[in-house]
Amino acid sequence: MITVLKSGTTVEQRDNLIEWFEDQGLKVHVSVGDTYTILGLVGDTSHIDVDMVNMLDIVDSVKRVSEPFKKANRKFHPEDTVIDVNGVKIGGGHFVTIAGPCSVENEKQIVEVAKRVKAAGADMLRGGAFKPRTSPYAFQGLKAEGIELLLEAKKVTGLPIVTEIMNEAYLDLYEDVDVIQVGARNMQNFDLLKALGEIDKPILLKRGLANTLEELLMSAEYIMAGGNEKVILCERGIRTFEPATRNTYDLSAVPALHEMTHLPVIGDPSHATGKRNFVKPMALATAAAGADGVMIEVHNDPSRAFSDGAQSLTPDQFDDVMKSLRAVRSTVFGGEVQA
Amino acid sequence: MITVLKSGTTVEQRDNLIEWFEDQGLKVHVSVGDTYTILGLVGDTSHIDVDMVNMLDIVDSVKRVSEPFKKANRKFHPEDTVIDVNGVKIGGGHFVTIAGPCSVENEKQIVEVAKRVKAAGADMLRGGAFKPRTSPYAFQGLKAEGIELLLEAKKVTGLPIVTEIMNEAYLDLYEDVDVIQVGARNMQNFDLLKALGEIDKPILLKRGLANTLEELLMSAEYIMAGGNEKVILCERGIRTFEPATRNTYDLSAVPALHEMTHLPVIGDPSHATGKRNFVKPMALATAAAGADGVMIEVHNDPSRAFSDGAQSLTPDQFDDVMKSLRAVRSTVFGGEVQA
Amino acid sequence: MITVLKSGTTVEQRDNLIEWFEDQGLKVHVSVGDTYTILGLVGDTSHIDVDMVNMLDIVDSVKRVSEPFKKANRKFHPEDTVIDVNGVKIGGGHFVTIAGPCSVENEKQIVEVAKRVKAAGADMLRGGAFKPRTSPYAFQGLKAEGIELLLEAKKVTGLPIVTEIMNEAYLDLYEDVDVIQVGARNMQNFDLLKALGEIDKPILLKRGLANTLEELLMSAEYIMAGGNEKVILCERGIRTFEPATRNTYDLSAVPALHEMTHLPVIGDPSHATGKRNFVKPMALATAAAGADGVMIEVHNDPSRAFSDGAQSLTPDQFDDVMKSLRAVRSTVFGGEVQA
Amino acid sequence: MITVLKSGTTVEQRDNLIEWFEDQGLKVHVSVGDTYTILGLVGDTSHIDVDMVNMLDIVDSVKRVSEPFKKANRKFHPEDTVIDVNGVKIGGGHFVTIAGPCSVENEKQIVEVAKRVKAAGADMLRGGAFKPRTSPYAFQGLKAEGIELLLEAKKVTGLPIVTEIMNEAYLDLYEDVDVIQVGARNMQNFDLLKALGEIDKPILLKRGLANTLEELLMSAEYIMAGGNEKVILCERGIRTFEPATRNTYDLSAVPALHEMTHLPVIGDPSHATGKRNFVKPMALATAAAGADGVMIEVHNDPSRAFSDGAQSLTPDQFDDVMKSLRAVRSTVFGGEVQA
Repeated sequence: MITVLKSGTTVEQRDNLIEWFEDQGLKVHVSVGDTYTILGLVGDTSHIDVDMVNMLDIVDSVKRVSEPFKKANRKFHPEDTVIDVNGVKIGGGHFVTIAGPCSVENEKQIVEVAKRVKAAGADMLRGGAFKPRTSPYAFQGLKAEGIELLLEAKKVTGLPIVTEIMNEAYLDLYEDVDVIQVGARNMQNFDLLKALGEIDKPILLKRGLANTLEELLMSAEYIMAGGNEKVILCERGIRTFEPATRNTYDLSAVPALHEMTHLPVIGDPSHATGKRNFVKPMALATAAAGADGVMIEVHNDPSRAFSDGAQSLTPDQFDDVMKSLRAVRSTVFGGEVQA
Repeated sequence: MITVLKSGTTVEQRDNLIEWFEDQGLKVHVSVGDTYTILGLVGDTSHIDVDMVNMLDIVDSVKRVSEPFKKANRKFHPEDTVIDVNGVKIGGGHFVTIAGPCSVENEKQIVEVAKRVKAAGADMLRGGAFKPRTSPYAFQGLKAEGIELLLEAKKVTGLPIVTEIMNEAYLDLYEDVDVIQVGARNMQNFDLLKALGEIDKPILLKRGLANTLEELLMSAEYIMAGGNEKVILCERGIRTFEPATRNTYDLSAVPALHEMTHLPVIGDPSHATGKRNFVKPMALATAAAGADGVMIEVHNDPSRAFSDGAQSLTPDQFDDVMKSLRAVRSTVFGGEVQA
Repeated sequence: MITVLKSGTTVEQRDNLIEWFEDQGLKVHVSVGDTYTILGLVGDTSHIDVDMVNMLDIVDSVKRVSEPFKKANRKFHPEDTVIDVNGVKIGGGHFVTIAGPCSVENEKQIVEVAKRVKAAGADMLRGGAFKPRTSPYAFQGLKAEGIELLLEAKKVTGLPIVTEIMNEAYLDLYEDVDVIQVGARNMQNFDLLKALGEIDKPILLKRGLANTLEELLMSAEYIMAGGNEKVILCERGIRTFEPATRNTYDLSAVPALHEMTHLPVIGDPSHATGKRNFVKPMALATAAAGADGVMIEVHNDPSRAFSDGAQSLTPDQFDDVMKSLRAVRSTVFGGEVQA
Repeated sequence: MITVLKSGTTVEQRDNLIEWFEDQGLKVHVSVGDTYTILGLVGDTSHIDVDMVNMLDIVDSVKRVSEPFKKANRKFHPEDTVIDVNGVKIGGGHFVTIAGPCSVENEKQIVEVAKRVKAAGADMLRGGAFKPRTSPYAFQGLKAEGIELLLEAKKVTGLPIVTEIMNEAYLDLYEDVDVIQVGARNMQNFDLLKALGEIDKPILLKRGLANTLEELLMSAEYIMAGGNEKVILCERGIRTFEPATRNTYDLSAVPALHEMTHLPVIGDPSHATGKRNFVKPMALATAAAGADGVMIEVHNDPSRAFSDGAQSLTPDQFDDVMKSLRAVRSTVFGGEVQA
């Protein structure tokens, strides 16, 4: 951390501040410039309130040198993390495709879609049982029954399942769920993250609508600090001024996160774009960008979908995407896409 | 709701869709143009999934005509809502000032600040007991003890108290809290909103970092749909590209919300700007813009604040702001600021 | 165009407005709802000031049905536009790679880079002679001399050249330039666009920092309305809150634009990400997304680059990207990348 | 400027870099930490390409300590700048109101509006002769004739005039214009800024749609570097995700700019909000925030306005705003609003 002192700061004021830093267990190096004096702080500064130091009269600015996230930081864990989900690996060269409908609607729907996506080569099945809806009047999901149906589809196909949790009060329902998803609107639901940090199960953490990559990693840090290091990150579009797509798919988050963290990173072009016609090109782009996986919405009859029908692919369209996805992944990174 | 059909749509396709709409209980008016055909839908369209209709092959676009929020909508409730908080009124011409520290730290601190802000004319006391911190390593608040201390300060000064809830699991601790605050990061924590909709207590709902005013009103709708109509809205800055301020204070949200809703609207220039020097000008601007109140952070010793010291005013600075605030409010709207 | 009238509008008021619309040469269809009355307008509404109608007391809202751009609109020109640049085709299945340094610095530099990128398979050479610099104290480009040096490199390698124009006053210097680039900051320099609309030369139009895709197409419309229909669009990143990349590369602009317009669309991952390590993954993603081309910055000695060294690839790195680029393009779309 | 070197940097690599900095005329202080080594650079670093240094293998990050703008910087010019426009002062306690229609349409309109706003107390008259229109098919302004009409209104009322320039090629038409306005879309039209830097006339520089305050000041720096120090800054709304207002009025730019620069700062709530009903509250807020002035659109018959009728006030509404504006300004800052 660097603290820049304003010109006009007296030696006494500077020394008082240096003493305060030393009381915090830090070592201080002084660099006197023409206009400013710079204090280089050495030691564990993660608990220092940057804003607090910034407001002192003699301080011009404070800048962190090391990132505030540690467990998620690649600097402290250079190897890619590989997460094993019931035999399906993700990360470190292993690419996964997660597919399924936005909402679980009934047994026939979820089992049919599960079979089709499995046949096409998907690695995991997704489906929403608890749905976050902006309107209190919209379909909120089948809840506990929805999870039961997903488990049914898992029994039939063998596909591991991924489904969203809205509230840690329901954690016991997720016993047999393979990957628990934290939705974009819950990325900073700190109590939920803490609860998920205490269990031993992979968590799929979606980036918030307007959260920076650093904030995403701090949320991952919340989970990891609790003891659960199996975190998969997901870019699903951020909020910007552009209305032509539902969100703006920030695909450069993939190489950016790969540089900052060792955790696997996947993309969700369905929720990001919100438009069926954009899903295939963006799914292929996601694979070409080096992501560790992609999540795609598939529904056997999108016109009758209870939610997000506009972005769902039909099973035939998904078959088509999978063929190209394998080819692109293979071309760029060699090897085969698993399953 | 308007559904625009693409050119090339056959009469048969159009009639099938009209039939589907009629099955939903809607009446359909047809308007045939040079390039497009427009279907005007009449009736309760709030449950129609706009995205679903939008994806049909023959549909070019769908546009809602009425807003999706009803209870919060001024069109259905033209009179300003006035909320009574233990004798202190807010809304409909009654302007309130809520002041206090970001975090409750100890009894001496909270009682001292409470006395000072009361003397200066504040109407309510705020203080954080449960703190949402981006980092798992930062001070998380005194929690239950924090609420106890706030109640202590209330006993001493008579000021009603406002404090944030992070999780509905702790609702019973808020029995004697006068106004329960929902933080920006929880604006779309739908389970929390539903729980707050079932109690009879004023809720201060903060706008999310990147949520539209319509989404803010849909979150208010969640609370009101549960039966609790005492919702106060708060603009606290939105996330943009500008780094000179912590957030971008969207003050035009005040007149915009006053047009859309009957609920009271206040502003929080402390969290919005993040800089002490900007709080006074923006607080005065908030009053001049016609807000129903303002929330300001005050700490008796900001350099030792556990959080957000950079934006906190000292009690002396707060005294100064209050004088000007009364004068501005009086000049623009006549009458006196209460208390 | 749809005009929605507020409830409470009298028959007389409605009829006055209908008469006004008819005077504008439009036909009006009336749809009476429970709360609102909707007027469907048929005819050429492109000159109607939407804001003006919107402000009338009886009007609740106005919504356009057709897009304001015509010449650029795929609805009126379903076939992909293919632009021929001195024998190099772009669009309609023809993918191009444009490469070169940010700034032209001296003859040795530009000729060396030109030879290397040509050998690697680039189709066109880029280089800045007139540089838009945020600071008046930074290197502003070699200007006329810079263009001379580019022409020298063209003579040596045969590569068509692309270079930016800042001001139409200098148009005559661009006689032998093959593609004239309009930079992001000039996307709405309407006088410049009008001047470029009057010449017969391909224009590479970069999307502005915070311009919507519709605004980009309206700027293309300015050029095309002047008579010059050879416009190539370029996504180069938009401004958002995320600091990890220089801009946010909005790659879904590629499929979105392909749907809206017939003009070719390329991507610039160098300026978008601002970081060398992100250029390769995003260049491959650009090809996988179906873009008609990609523009990449290459410098023979980035550490000594006069501008944007941080995002420039070395010639060796560019060779590596080109191999993968061809493979991805081939995998996704079949055929060979030209040259 | 601080350069942070990665752990693992050898002494030799570090010393090579230190030598390079010293060759640039800088002094270097070394601060060795646990993980990082920090080089504090002392001297004139304004010409160093931060991005270039940032890309060196051994460099982790580079952070500027001093701002890149000098002439506009309050640190080098602590006194407020007061600009005299034909006897009307702006800045340093002098508040001005600039009013008039969006476009100059005909003599009757501009003279009538000029008389009305003068009577209400406006200090200067605005009106657009050259209009920047997003669509090539929309009214582009009366151009030279428009300026003539403004001069006519000036003769009749004595009000100094403010009007926008789109292109330096037309500078000679602005001989008798009192303040030349640079529109938001031209804030980074560097050739235009350079040309305006060479004349002796006040310039009203509008912030770009998505430009940071630092970029706004760098554009002011372009003008000042040319020799013209009479620059007035204007906040007119920035582009965000919120659709309820035309732009998001970033009013905290007023105190933020007052801290960063000595130049006067005004606000334009008409273009910022785009809605007539929001202009009065935001104009009052602008005065309360301490701005040096406000610019308001007024039209004698908004329903027939050629552009932006939706945000224009009628003369009667303007009279009403002026009364409150004086009162607010007086309350907050004492003294009288001039004229």
